[in-house]
Amino acid sequence: MGDTGVNLAISTVIFALRPAPDGGAPTLWIPLVRRIRDPHLGLWALPGGPLLPEESLAEAAAHNLKSTTDVEPRYLEQLYAFGEPDRSPGDRVVSIVYWALVHSGEAEQLAEGENVRWFVADEVPRLAFDHNTIIEYALWRLRNKMEYSRIAHALLGETFTLTQLREVHEAVLGRPLDPANFRRQIESSGDVVATDQVVTGGRHRPPRLFRYIGSVDLGDTGPLSG
Amino acid sequence: MGDTGVNLAISTVIFALRPAPDGGAPTLWIPLVRRIRDPHLGLWALPGGPLLPEESLAEAAAHNLKSTTDVEPRYLEQLYAFGEPDRSPGDRVVSIVYWALVHSGEAEQLAEGENVRWFVADEVPRLAFDHNTIIEYALWRLRNKMEYSRIAHALLGETFTLTQLREVHEAVLGRPLDPANFRRQIESSGDVVATDQVVTGGRHRPPRLFRYIGSVDLGDTGPLSG
Repeated sequence: MGDTGVNLAISTVIFALRPAPDGGAPTLWIPLVRRIRDPHLGLWALPGGPLLPEESLAEAAAHNLKSTTDVEPRYLEQLYAFGEPDRSPGDRVVSIVYWALVHSGEAEQLAEGENVRWFVADEVPRLAFDHNTIIEYALWRLRNKMEYSRIAHALLGETFTLTQLREVHEAVLGRPLDPANFRRQIESSGDVVATDQVVTGGRHRPPRLFRYIGSVDLGDTGPLSG
Repeated sequence: MGDTGVNLAISTVIFALRPAPDGGAPTLWIPLVRRIRDPHLGLWALPGGPLLPEESLAEAAAHNLKSTTDVEPRYLEQLYAFGEPDRSPGDRVVSIVYWALVHSGEAEQLAEGENVRWFVADEVPRLAFDHNTIIEYALWRLRNKMEYSRIAHALLGETFTLTQLREVHEAVLGRPLDPANFRRQIESSGDVVATDQVVTGGRHRPPRLFRYIGSVDLGDTGPLSG
């Protein structure tokens, strides 16, 4: 606000699944942008920018996301507003932060540039401002949400094998899950159902494809989601 | 932000338990302030104001609360940032909204003035801006939270009878609960424990006082609450 010297910014934590750095299992990654001016010139930071007059907050976050990664979010939710007086040197900046999930298929074609790079979410370097804290909180929110909602859906295609579904859970939670236990838990939840399709490719016992039942709101913003 | 014409405000939805208007059971109330300038001159609105340069967001919300109700919050949590471009006529205002629980004992001594009045939370009139939507969302958040956390604690004293605890749940949820079922559910949760005290006052079978076990963080902001 001009008269009290408070600036408002919108930033976005973008999660996507991509193979681990060693080419292994799907892993949670986030794109960061390099600061090209002070404060914190040269450090990596969350993508963000000012709020344009005609944009809603979510539109500004989607706009961030599109200009950083060139993909549309599968899921976008407001995370939190960060406004400690000392979080930006020399300036008072309040950041309203969103978090987004990008579909893994789309994320594999993402370009990196000199000033945009993808990092394994649990292994980011020291970032500008309080952005390490923000990512830690976004990871906590995502992991919590994985336990009680269908948020994994946003990281999968319309159909998926139970192995793919488990790999999404493992990537987000950052730990391996027992395949037989996971299968039992998913089957008893009643959330997914087998389709009459299998994975093509000539294997002797091709794995079956599943889909989520019905269309359920992925978020939990209740009256705001209508 | 001055240069893009976006103004930042902090508002607070304050909940307290007070007797129903007919003098009956505890009921959820919220204080509102009358607008004394345009836009929406004369309509009721959430207490709020600008963010002062030296205040954190939560400090600004607590400051709102203190200047409206003259009590300290027992619980204060960020609700959401509201920023639709058309939510304030003639101006671009982004409101970061907090919600608070005030202890019922304290709330009974609250003064009302010409421009501050308490309303039953489910029966507010048409308010300024999008404040009806904000209250609806705050109620949804509070009711959700009641189901899976100890948030009721913030509306009670250190010790309480099971009837008082049930009345808090009934007031927040807005519906009666079966006393025997409620007692079984609370006892099996392991969250509360009987003290060796009873309610004094000379009744033949004075009700026992209970307390919550241990000290548990009431919120769910994970890494942010440290």
